[in-house]
Amino acid sequence: MELQTFQPLATQLFADIRSLTFDGVGVTRASYGPGEDLAAQHLETFARGEGLEVARDRAGNLVFSDPADTRSVPAVWVGSHMDSVPQGGNYDGLAGIVAGLLVQVAARRAGVQLAVPLKVVGFRGEESAWFGKAYMGSGALWGKLTASDLELQRRGDGKTLRECMQASGADVEAIARQEKLLNPGDIRAYVELHIEQGPVMVARKIPLGVVSGIRGNVRHNLIGCVGEAQHSGVVPRWLRHDAVFAVADLIMRLDTHWRALLERGTDLVVTCGVLQTNPAEHSISRVPGYASFSLEARSKSIDTLEAFYQLVQAEMRSIERERGVQFQPDRRLLSDPAVTDGQLSELLSRACAARGIAHESIPSGAGHDAALFANGGVPSAMLFVRNQNGSHNPHEAMEMDDFMQGVQVLADMLEALPA
Amino acid sequence: MELQTFQPLATQLFADIRSLTFDGVGVTRASYGPGEDLAAQHLETFARGEGLEVARDRAGNLVFSDPADTRSVPAVWVGSHMDSVPQGGNYDGLAGIVAGLLVQVAARRAGVQLAVPLKVVGFRGEESAWFGKAYMGSGALWGKLTASDLELQRRGDGKTLRECMQASGADVEAIARQEKLLNPGDIRAYVELHIEQGPVMVARKIPLGVVSGIRGNVRHNLIGCVGEAQHSGVVPRWLRHDAVFAVADLIMRLDTHWRALLERGTDLVVTCGVLQTNPAEHSISRVPGYASFSLEARSKSIDTLEAFYQLVQAEMRSIERERGVQFQPDRRLLSDPAVTDGQLSELLSRACAARGIAHESIPSGAGHDAALFANGGVPSAMLFVRNQNGSHNPHEAMEMDDFMQGVQVLADMLEALPA
Repeated sequence: MELQTFQPLATQLFADIRSLTFDGVGVTRASYGPGEDLAAQHLETFARGEGLEVARDRAGNLVFSDPADTRSVPAVWVGSHMDSVPQGGNYDGLAGIVAGLLVQVAARRAGVQLAVPLKVVGFRGEESAWFGKAYMGSGALWGKLTASDLELQRRGDGKTLRECMQASGADVEAIARQEKLLNPGDIRAYVELHIEQGPVMVARKIPLGVVSGIRGNVRHNLIGCVGEAQHSGVVPRWLRHDAVFAVADLIMRLDTHWRALLERGTDLVVTCGVLQTNPAEHSISRVPGYASFSLEARSKSIDTLEAFYQLVQAEMRSIERERGVQFQPDRRLLSDPAVTDGQLSELLSRACAARGIAHESIPSGAGHDAALFANGGVPSAMLFVRNQNGSHNPHEAMEMDDFMQGVQVLADMLEALPA
Repeated sequence: MELQTFQPLATQLFADIRSLTFDGVGVTRASYGPGEDLAAQHLETFARGEGLEVARDRAGNLVFSDPADTRSVPAVWVGSHMDSVPQGGNYDGLAGIVAGLLVQVAARRAGVQLAVPLKVVGFRGEESAWFGKAYMGSGALWGKLTASDLELQRRGDGKTLRECMQASGADVEAIARQEKLLNPGDIRAYVELHIEQGPVMVARKIPLGVVSGIRGNVRHNLIGCVGEAQHSGVVPRWLRHDAVFAVADLIMRLDTHWRALLERGTDLVVTCGVLQTNPAEHSISRVPGYASFSLEARSKSIDTLEAFYQLVQAEMRSIERERGVQFQPDRRLLSDPAVTDGQLSELLSRACAARGIAHESIPSGAGHDAALFANGGVPSAMLFVRNQNGSHNPHEAMEMDDFMQGVQVLADMLEALPA
């Protein structure tokens, strides 16, 4: 199949969903929330117009299939997510769903039956920005969401994940019991197209990348640091219990460890994306008695994640003794690193080569729904599309020519996939 | 005069004003705002009931005097401030006004004429917590408030200092022109009783302290640090422009300098009371592109303040180069250190000694309205009263016995003051 003629349709779909979810700065599609719903409705309307069947699975995700394909053999799933971070970009997630739908629509219009039945999945709730937890839509399918996860509250409106999932038609009782809502044996393979979220492919001038593995992460949404609020002018340094100095100290110690580990070739990223003192006690003349921050470490190696986590705890204990503060971490969240399937990746590489498209094998620094399928025993692969200006910001800028090359390679690969 | 019988009256005044301005946690008396107004009204009603005259000066401060005292010679001013930090304590500021009023009331009831006419002043707007600027009520009298200060916005409601001062009856046009609204030659001396805001007097078991000098400070209410928001998983460390790591780095460098300077015996305190990333872009998986913080350095020495300020700037430049960020400080605010008057301090010490009250000479780490009078050429003195649990928090706990000893010493000193 040749997909290049679908470029205007792809452009239109992206533009329509962007304008539906534009927030004045970027797009905002809250996990299990309003913007995600708008995107879902638009995709559903479009797919039904093309004669596709649209179902909602027990986690509220959208599942698109061709009613003409009645084969009851394991299907290949092509999916990605519909949500975005606040003030995010239009392509992160959405590109993978549009890509899958274009292949499905092209096959249906051309009357082509792919080697394996195709299901396109639009996941909900992949971004951790909303509930402090990632992969909620796919995680629920795998029985990985716990009852306490369902009590997490969404930033902004404070609604619980339970009520938001329920509103999206999810079976929250089964999810709370951690039932597996899919049968891995029914899935021949999982393939996800996604924009690259870093600068590597732009720098190397390659439009497509075949993902070799996906970094995992260990996170705390909030670590409180409790000191003592005191008037700044009147407490000698050795009697201070300064929460800001303590947190700054911890961050700098972690930065030093990080640098040392990188020099030894260890794969590691450390981020504190959120940091704040308590607005209720804000005063420039008050020693801050409380500060809180988020902590995230990413690595391709679970051993590195665990070793670094030990370091974090050791440094906290040391600073607690030295500065008379107390660190209070919330629940630890772990996402396992994942390895992609060699055979599927090879098919993607061959499809690129056959079309003469420059491509490379590239690790994924960010997590993806694909990681859950890979770690669940489903052969999984990912195809990255070059993207300017990074992601998780309003300036992401994938070129449509690059995207259509990715869609073509995806279609070629699905046609070549052995049943 | 013997003031001990006034203890129940003092207790009642503090309790009434506390309950008028209680916020559920501590007291909140916003500078030129509602809680300060309530305190002012209560003090005014009380004073009028005692036959005192109550006027408002051109900065909106309350001035209490005895109409029976018609001498037209320079008066001694006894004052302090009516406002508090948010969720602050009841005694910081208020104690000095109540002390002055008790002496005034006692003299009037007893028909005693003090050696020098007494004016008690209840200043507005001493705390920097509200407009990011301290000594607004006293500063306006000295022509130290600028037109641009008047545009500062109050935390919480965003009202400008100009509109708040105007609502309190202040002559904002004269203030904007930086007219001096008092004549230093009319003031024989300025004396301020204040709770100690640190732990020294409790530790040394002395109920009263005679203040030797007042620390000055240099401040920025807000220094922005601009980096670049990026997805945390996908940007290599050397390409990051991480605002949180940059701010943590700066704070730790300043902490190191501070420690080194303290070891050399330099008087210095460094505080970052406010620190926050941008809530609009909060995500634990986003490299923070912006963080802001407040910075305050205090010292008895103006040279130390200036030298440390140079260090801050040098470290900012260095971190900007190393981490690819930019620091954007707002307007620099400087309060000069001040030296108290030897003769007045000696009178206070002698009054303590005559009553057999343990006392010491003690520097003031915090700033006070007194500093403006001292630096304006008015002989000035301060008397500290022991206070548990520090100040700028709801737990400050002056004992009424200590307070009444302070009031007695103040009265004795005013009786002994040469005209």
